[in-house]
Amino acid sequence: MGEKRYIYDLSEGDASMRNLLGGKGAGVAEMARVGVPVPDAFTVTTTACVETMKRSGQWPEGLGGQIDAALARLEERTGRKLGGSRTPLLVSVRSGAVHSMPGMMDTILNLGISDESVVAVAEESGNERFAWDCYRRFIQMYGEVVEGVPGHAYEDALSALKSDRGVANDTDLSAEDLKELVATFKEISSEHLGGDWSTDPHEQLHRAVNAVFKSWGNPRAEVYRRANNISADLGTAVNVMQMVFGNRGDTSATGVCFTRNPSTGQKALYGEFLLNAQGEDVVAGIRTPRPLEQMQEVLPEAYDQLVETMLTMEHHYRDMQDMEFTVENGKLFLLQTRSGKRTAAAALKVVSDLVDEGIIDHETALMRIEPAQLDQLLHPAIDPHHGRKPIAKGLPASPGAAVGEIVFDADTAAERGGRAEPVVLVRFETNPDDIHGVIVAQGILTAHGGMTSHAAVVARGMGKPCVAGAAGIKIDVAGKTLTIGDRVLREGDVVTLDGTAGDVYGEKLELVPPQINEDFQRVVQWADEVRTLGVRANADNFEDASKARELGAEGIGLCRTEHMFMAQDRLPAVRRMILASTADARAEALADILPMQQSDFEGIFTAMKGLPVTVRLLDPPLHEFLPNLVEQSLLVQRLEFERADETELAKAREVLSQVKRLHEQNPMLGTRGCRLAMLYPEIPDMQARAIIRAALAVKEREGETVGVEIMIPLVALSKELEAQRGIVEKAVTEELDAAGADLEYTIGTMIEIPRAALIADKIAEHADFFSFGTNDLTQMAIGISRDDAENGFLTHYVMDRVLERNPFESIDVDGVGELVEIAVKRGRDTKPNLKTGVCGEHGGDPDSIEFFHRVGLNYVSCSPFRVPIARFAAAKAVLKAQSRD
Amino acid sequence: MGEKRYIYDLSEGDASMRNLLGGKGAGVAEMARVGVPVPDAFTVTTTACVETMKRSGQWPEGLGGQIDAALARLEERTGRKLGGSRTPLLVSVRSGAVHSMPGMMDTILNLGISDESVVAVAEESGNERFAWDCYRRFIQMYGEVVEGVPGHAYEDALSALKSDRGVANDTDLSAEDLKELVATFKEISSEHLGGDWSTDPHEQLHRAVNAVFKSWGNPRAEVYRRANNISADLGTAVNVMQMVFGNRGDTSATGVCFTRNPSTGQKALYGEFLLNAQGEDVVAGIRTPRPLEQMQEVLPEAYDQLVETMLTMEHHYRDMQDMEFTVENGKLFLLQTRSGKRTAAAALKVVSDLVDEGIIDHETALMRIEPAQLDQLLHPAIDPHHGRKPIAKGLPASPGAAVGEIVFDADTAAERGGRAEPVVLVRFETNPDDIHGVIVAQGILTAHGGMTSHAAVVARGMGKPCVAGAAGIKIDVAGKTLTIGDRVLREGDVVTLDGTAGDVYGEKLELVPPQINEDFQRVVQWADEVRTLGVRANADNFEDASKARELGAEGIGLCRTEHMFMAQDRLPAVRRMILASTADARAEALADILPMQQSDFEGIFTAMKGLPVTVRLLDPPLHEFLPNLVEQSLLVQRLEFERADETELAKAREVLSQVKRLHEQNPMLGTRGCRLAMLYPEIPDMQARAIIRAALAVKEREGETVGVEIMIPLVALSKELEAQRGIVEKAVTEELDAAGADLEYTIGTMIEIPRAALIADKIAEHADFFSFGTNDLTQMAIGISRDDAENGFLTHYVMDRVLERNPFESIDVDGVGELVEIAVKRGRDTKPNLKTGVCGEHGGDPDSIEFFHRVGLNYVSCSPFRVPIARFAAAKAVLKAQSRD
Repeated sequence: MGEKRYIYDLSEGDASMRNLLGGKGAGVAEMARVGVPVPDAFTVTTTACVETMKRSGQWPEGLGGQIDAALARLEERTGRKLGGSRTPLLVSVRSGAVHSMPGMMDTILNLGISDESVVAVAEESGNERFAWDCYRRFIQMYGEVVEGVPGHAYEDALSALKSDRGVANDTDLSAEDLKELVATFKEISSEHLGGDWSTDPHEQLHRAVNAVFKSWGNPRAEVYRRANNISADLGTAVNVMQMVFGNRGDTSATGVCFTRNPSTGQKALYGEFLLNAQGEDVVAGIRTPRPLEQMQEVLPEAYDQLVETMLTMEHHYRDMQDMEFTVENGKLFLLQTRSGKRTAAAALKVVSDLVDEGIIDHETALMRIEPAQLDQLLHPAIDPHHGRKPIAKGLPASPGAAVGEIVFDADTAAERGGRAEPVVLVRFETNPDDIHGVIVAQGILTAHGGMTSHAAVVARGMGKPCVAGAAGIKIDVAGKTLTIGDRVLREGDVVTLDGTAGDVYGEKLELVPPQINEDFQRVVQWADEVRTLGVRANADNFEDASKARELGAEGIGLCRTEHMFMAQDRLPAVRRMILASTADARAEALADILPMQQSDFEGIFTAMKGLPVTVRLLDPPLHEFLPNLVEQSLLVQRLEFERADETELAKAREVLSQVKRLHEQNPMLGTRGCRLAMLYPEIPDMQARAIIRAALAVKEREGETVGVEIMIPLVALSKELEAQRGIVEKAVTEELDAAGADLEYTIGTMIEIPRAALIADKIAEHADFFSFGTNDLTQMAIGISRDDAENGFLTHYVMDRVLERNPFESIDVDGVGELVEIAVKRGRDTKPNLKTGVCGEHGGDPDSIEFFHRVGLNYVSCSPFRVPIARFAAAKAVLKAQSRD
Repeated sequence: MGEKRYIYDLSEGDASMRNLLGGKGAGVAEMARVGVPVPDAFTVTTTACVETMKRSGQWPEGLGGQIDAALARLEERTGRKLGGSRTPLLVSVRSGAVHSMPGMMDTILNLGISDESVVAVAEESGNERFAWDCYRRFIQMYGEVVEGVPGHAYEDALSALKSDRGVANDTDLSAEDLKELVATFKEISSEHLGGDWSTDPHEQLHRAVNAVFKSWGNPRAEVYRRANNISADLGTAVNVMQMVFGNRGDTSATGVCFTRNPSTGQKALYGEFLLNAQGEDVVAGIRTPRPLEQMQEVLPEAYDQLVETMLTMEHHYRDMQDMEFTVENGKLFLLQTRSGKRTAAAALKVVSDLVDEGIIDHETALMRIEPAQLDQLLHPAIDPHHGRKPIAKGLPASPGAAVGEIVFDADTAAERGGRAEPVVLVRFETNPDDIHGVIVAQGILTAHGGMTSHAAVVARGMGKPCVAGAAGIKIDVAGKTLTIGDRVLREGDVVTLDGTAGDVYGEKLELVPPQINEDFQRVVQWADEVRTLGVRANADNFEDASKARELGAEGIGLCRTEHMFMAQDRLPAVRRMILASTADARAEALADILPMQQSDFEGIFTAMKGLPVTVRLLDPPLHEFLPNLVEQSLLVQRLEFERADETELAKAREVLSQVKRLHEQNPMLGTRGCRLAMLYPEIPDMQARAIIRAALAVKEREGETVGVEIMIPLVALSKELEAQRGIVEKAVTEELDAAGADLEYTIGTMIEIPRAALIADKIAEHADFFSFGTNDLTQMAIGISRDDAENGFLTHYVMDRVLERNPFESIDVDGVGELVEIAVKRGRDTKPNLKTGVCGEHGGDPDSIEFFHRVGLNYVSCSPFRVPIARFAAAKAVLKAQSRD
C-alpha cells in the first residue's frame, strides 16, 4: 500500500468527519445520508491540503491518481463524462474548511465545459445561450482563480462587446454574442499564459483543486483566521460536486434560507431566491432576490420539499440551519447546510426557544453561545446599518460604542460632562490625574497605550468604551485639534467610537442600547447551574461594588487601596506621609488618611454586605504619588532661570530631591507592595485598622458586614508574609479589643512573583488564601513591561504571530499558566483547603477562565461589567472539560 | 523515660560529637581518649542550649538535676567537693560552640570558691594570697558575667584600695589586702543585687551555665555569626571543667601554642607562656608572655611532654593545632585543642607541607581551604599592622586594596592615571561614560550603589578594588570635595581603600602585594584534578581575555558586545543607527560599525584561540546609547531660555524626541535583547558577519581560531530563537560561502527569563547550548530590580535577615535555583547532550558554584580574576557532594 487515502465519495462521509472532509463536505455527506437530495460529489480531504502545504505545494504521492479514480466513479454514478461531447459532466470545485470561512477561499463552477461539451450542454438543456454563458463564465473564473489572469482583462472585453452591441446588461447578449465572447476570452487566457493554458478538463480539475489548496494561504483568509482564532495548520478540504443549474429557465431557481431569523432569532422561515439564476447572481447583487415565501407560488412542489427539508435538518442538527439550494427543472437540490451565522441577540433567542421546544438542554444551549456574543449585548453598539467608514483605527480596548464631542483635557471633560453634555475624552495617553474626566466622558480615545494601558483598564472597569493606541491620530493639546490624515477635528466636533472593534468615526452615528434582556438573563442563570468556579469583581468604591453585585458578583476579589490614595483631596496627606522624615511624622500623616480610607471601605462593605471582600494593602511605589521626575526637574530649572521667589524655589528643590530619592530604574521591580510595608510598617498598620473599623461600623449600622479578607501584595519571600501577617494581626486584634467586638477575617497574599509561585508551599504556611495577580506574574515571568511592550515589540509579535495572543489579554498557559499550576499544587500540599483565586485582567477573559477552572482555582475576579461573561465562561469551562473526558 | 540526656562526662565524648558537645567539649574528650592529660570535666550539650532558647530561656525538664548528678560524679572522680571546706573542687564554666567563635561568649573561672572553701584552697596550696586572689577574681567575674553587675564598680574599689595602700600593681596587694577586697566585692554584689546574690556554689553553677546559654545571643556573638555565616540556631555547649592553676608558684605556668606558624605556615613550634599566671593574664596583656622555647629551660619536663603532645595532636587531627595548656606544680594539662586559625598564606603553606609530609591527600587539602582565603591572596592587601581606623565604611564591592589621590571625574582620572599617577576615582555612582576613568584608577569609591552596581561589576571584572555605597560620604563634584563627618578631603588628597572589607582610610597605608605563589598554584592545580565543572571567563577585549587565559580560563562564557558599542569612537555610528528612519539607513550605519566589531572580536579570538568563545549578540535597549531623558529635557529647556541658535535647538529637540520615543518605564523588561533584534534584524545580521569574519581572519593569521558560539539573549518564546537562529545562520552561511571557508560554530541562547526556563524543552529544539543569565533571571524571578533594590529595601532585608544572602551575590536556590534545575532537566529531555553553563555574577560565587555543580551544568563563567576561585570552588563542590553521599 504505502499510499494514503485522500478522497471520500459522497456516500462514504457523514457529519462526524468534519475534520477530514471540512464543514461543507461532511454536511453534504450527512444530508445525503439522511435522504436529503444533494448533487453527487466527492471530497478531497484536508489532509491532502496539509500535506501539500508541508511539501511547499507539491502534492502527496497518489493524490492525482485518486482524483482521477474518484472522477471516474462519479462519471459512472451520474452516467456522464467530464468534458464529454455527449451527456457531459460539469462539476463545481469548492473549498470547505473545518471552520466556516465564508467567501475567504476560491470556488470554480462549471468545470468540464469545453469546446466539445458546450454543444452537448446546449442540446441537453435546449438552451444554447445558457450553454455559452456557462462557458464564458467558466473561462473567466478559471482564468482568474486558477491561472491568475487579471480579472479586468475579461471585464474589459465584456464591456467592449456590450458597448459594441449597444446593450446595458449581460443578459441582453445573445448566444452568438457569447460565442464571440468565449473566443475573445480564450484569446485573453492564451495571451496571458502562453502555452500553459490548459483546455483539458481533467488537467483543469487538478489545477482547480490545487488552486483551492493555495487559496487557504491567501491574505484575506489569513486575516480572517487570525481574527477568528482559527489555526493556520488545519488546511481546507475540496469538494468536487456535479453542477446543478438554477439558470435553466423558469422552473429553475437558486437561493439561500435560514430555519430561523438570523437577525432576531425569531422562529420563522427566512430566505431569498432568484428564478433562473446561478448562485453567484445572488451574491453579485445585480438582480434583487425575492423573499422565500414567494417561491411557494412559483415552485410549489420544490418549496414544500424545501420547507420539509429545512425542518428535518434543523431537527437533525438541533440548531438553526443556513442552507443553499438550487432547483433545476423543478427538482430541488440542497448544496450546503451549516449552522447559521446569527447576531448575538438572535443566538440567545434561538437557544432559549430551542430549550423551550425541548430540542436542546441547558448545557447544549450554553455550548452554542460564545462569550464574545454576550459581551456585545452588554454594551451599547453602533446601529449596524450606518455604511460609514472609520476615519481611524486603534485597539478595541474597552467594548461598546460612544458618541460625543471631543475634548482634550480631563478638566474640560469633567466640567462639560458634569453638565451632562456627552463628551469623548481624547488624550495622548491617560494617567491617574485624568480620572475625573474619564468618569464623566462617554468614551475615551488615546493615541498611545495598549489593551492594558491605564485608559484601557480604567475604561473596562467602568464599562465605558475606549479605543486605545490609535496610532494614526495626531493630538495638539494646546491647539485643541485632532488630526487624522488631512482631516482636522476641533474641540466640540462630534465623533463616534466603537470600542468593540477599535474604530473611530468622524460623525455622529446611531447607537442601539445594551440588550440585557430575558434571554440573556436565562442563559447566564443556566451558566450558574453548571459552573463550579466562583465569580467576583474588582471594585474600589461603592458604585462599582453595587454594579458588580447587580451583575451577579459573589464578592470582591480585589479592592485596590491606592486609588483612594490618589484622590485629589487625599494627595496632600499622602505626600506628607511620604515626605515625613520620622516614623512619628509618618504616623501622624497616616492618622489623617485613616478616616478617609475607613469611609471608602464602609461604602464598599455596605454594597457587599454578606459577601467576601478582599482588600489589597497599598501596592504601588511611593513615587507614584509624587510629581514626575522630568517635570519636576524642568520646573526647578525654570524657576532658576526666572529667578523665582527663594521659598518657592527651595520647596520645588526639596520635592525634586524626594522625587530623585524615590526614583527607580524599574519601578515594576522596585520598592512597592509589601516591600514598602516592610520599610514603613505604619502603613499596613493604618490600613488594617481602617478596614476593621469600617467592617465593624457597617455591622453596627446594617446588622451584617462583609467577610473581611486582607491581602498582602508582592510577596516573594515567606518571611515577608510572616512579618506582614504579624503586623496586620496585631492591629486587628488591638482594634477588636478596643471595640470589644468580634469579627471573622482572613489574611492572604497575592501570588504575582514567579518565586512566590515556586515556593508556594512555604508561603501557604502564612496565608489563608492565594490570589493570583496574573498581570504582574505575566510581566515578570515573560520579562515584559506591559506598558512599554504594548507600545512596542509586543504588538509586532502578535501581528507577526511570534505570539499567538497578547499574554496580557489571555493567559500564557505554557509559562505563566505553569506557575499558577505549580503554586496551586504546592500551596495545597501545605493547606489542602487553601482558597485560590485570580484578580488580574485575565479573570474576565473566557479562555483564561477555562484554564483557571482546569487548574482548580476557587474563583475569578474581574471588572464588574465582565461578571456575566465570567459566570458564563466558567460554565463553558465545565462543559468543555466534560466533553474532553 | 521522657527526660532527654543533656550531659556527657569527659570519658563519654569523642571528636565525632562536635555538634552535640561543641568544638571545645569534643576536643577535650578526644584528647582524654587518646591519653593526653586534661583536667576532668563534663559538658552540657548544645541541645540543652537550643531547647532553652526555644522556651524563651526556661530550661528543659531535667537539666538542673542532670547538672547536679554530673557534678556529683565529677566530685567522686576527683575526690573533691564543690565549695567544700576540705579538698574543695573549683571548676571553670566555658562556652564551646560547634564552630569556633573566640572571645565571643562568656567564661567563669574558679567557680566553687567561697567563704568555706577559700581557707582550704589556701591551706592546700600553701599560698593564702593565691586563694584570696582566686576568690576576688571569681566574685568580680561571676558578678559581671552572670549577674550583670557593672564591672567598673569592682574596678573602682580595687583602684581605691591600691591607692590607699600606695601600690601600683594588683600583685603588690597582700593576702590581707585581698581579704578586705573580697569583703568589699561581696558588698558591691549584694548592693547591686540585693537578696538575689547567691553565695551557694551549686546555685552559682546553675546560673553560670545559664549565663553561657544567654551569651550565645549577645550582640557581639550575633555580629560574629553573621560575618562568618554561622547559623543562629546551633546554640553553644557548656564545658564544666576542674580548675587547674598556672598561678601556684614558679613550677606553674599557662600558655598557648601552635603546631606551626599561623602567620606563615612554616613548620616550627610557635607559642607563648607565662610563669605563675592564669590564662586571663595572658589575654589581659599586663605581663608580656615569653616565647615557648624558653619554657624548655624553666619547666623542661612539662615542655618535653607538651612538644610530644603537640606532635601527637597534629598527627591525630592531621592539621595544624592551636592549644591551650596549664602547668600546675610541674604537671602539664591541656585545656583545649582546635584547628589553628591562620592567615590565607599560612593555610596554603600548611596544606602544601602536610601533603608533602604524606599526612593528608590532595582532596583533604582542598577541603581545608576556603575560597575566600584564595580570594585574599589574589589581590594586594593593606599591611595588617597599620593600627588606623577607617574614616568611612561601604560595601566590599571588589576585593583588594588601593592607595591614590582622589579625583572626582573620569576625565581627570583618565588624564592623571594616563600619566601613571595613582588616583582613586570618587563618584556618586558610576555609569558606562566613566569607563575610561575606571580603567586607569587604582580603585573606585562610590557613595551610592550596591554589590552589583555598575562600579562594582566593572571593578570586579578588572580585579580592581572598589568600595561602593559608602553612605556616610558627601561628594561635591563642582567643589571637588569629599566630606566625611567633619573631615573635608580635596582633590589630590590621598586615601587608601580596602575593597575586601569595604573600608576607607584617610591616609596612605602600606600595601602587601598579591601572593599567587607556588602553594597557591599547587592548590588550584589539585582542584583541577578533582573538578568536573568547566571554568570560563567573562571578557570583552583582548586584555581581559589574555588575563583570563593566564588565570586558567578554559574559554570565554560571555563576551558582551555592547561595551564595544559604548566606546567613544563608535557612539556616533551607533547613534546614527538608532536614529535611522529606514532599514537602509540603519544598514548603512551598521556597515560602519561592522569592521570595528570585527577588530574587537579578532583581539579576543587571538587571545583565546583553540578554546570556545561565547559571543552574546546585542543585549541592552537602544536608549542606553542615547543621552538621559532628564538631562536632554533640561538641555532643551535651557537652550530655549538662552534663545540658542535655532539649528542647535532643533538638533537637541530631535534627540529629545528620539529619547522620548525609546524611553521605557521598565527598561529591564523592555525592548532589548532578541526583541530588538526581531524589530531590527539588520543588527544580528551585522554582528554574525563580524564574528565570522573575525574568526576566519584569526584562523588565517594564527593557524587556528576559537570555537565560535553565538548566543541570542533574552529569549522568552521559542519562536524568537527560531527566527534569530535563522537570521544568524543565513548571515554565517553567506559569509562562509563568500570566503569559501569552513568553520564549526554553534548557536545557543541565554536562559534569563523565567518563562524560558519553564519551556526549556521547546527552546532546546533551536539551541545548541543554554547559558543561564542568572543576574536577570534573579531580577525577574524574585521581581527585584537590582540597582534599585540594593540602594533600597534589599540592603534592609539582608540586615534584618528577611533574606539570608543577597540573591545577586549568591544564587537563591529555592526560587531562581529551581528554575535553573527545571531548565536543565527539560532542555536535556529534548537534547540529552545540551551544553549548559552560567554567565551571571554567580559564576564566581563559591556557594553558587556548588549549586551549579549539583544540578549538572557543564561550566561556569566569571570575571577573569575569579577564575582561580571558581576552579577551586568547583573542586570543593565535587568533594562536598561526595561527603554527602
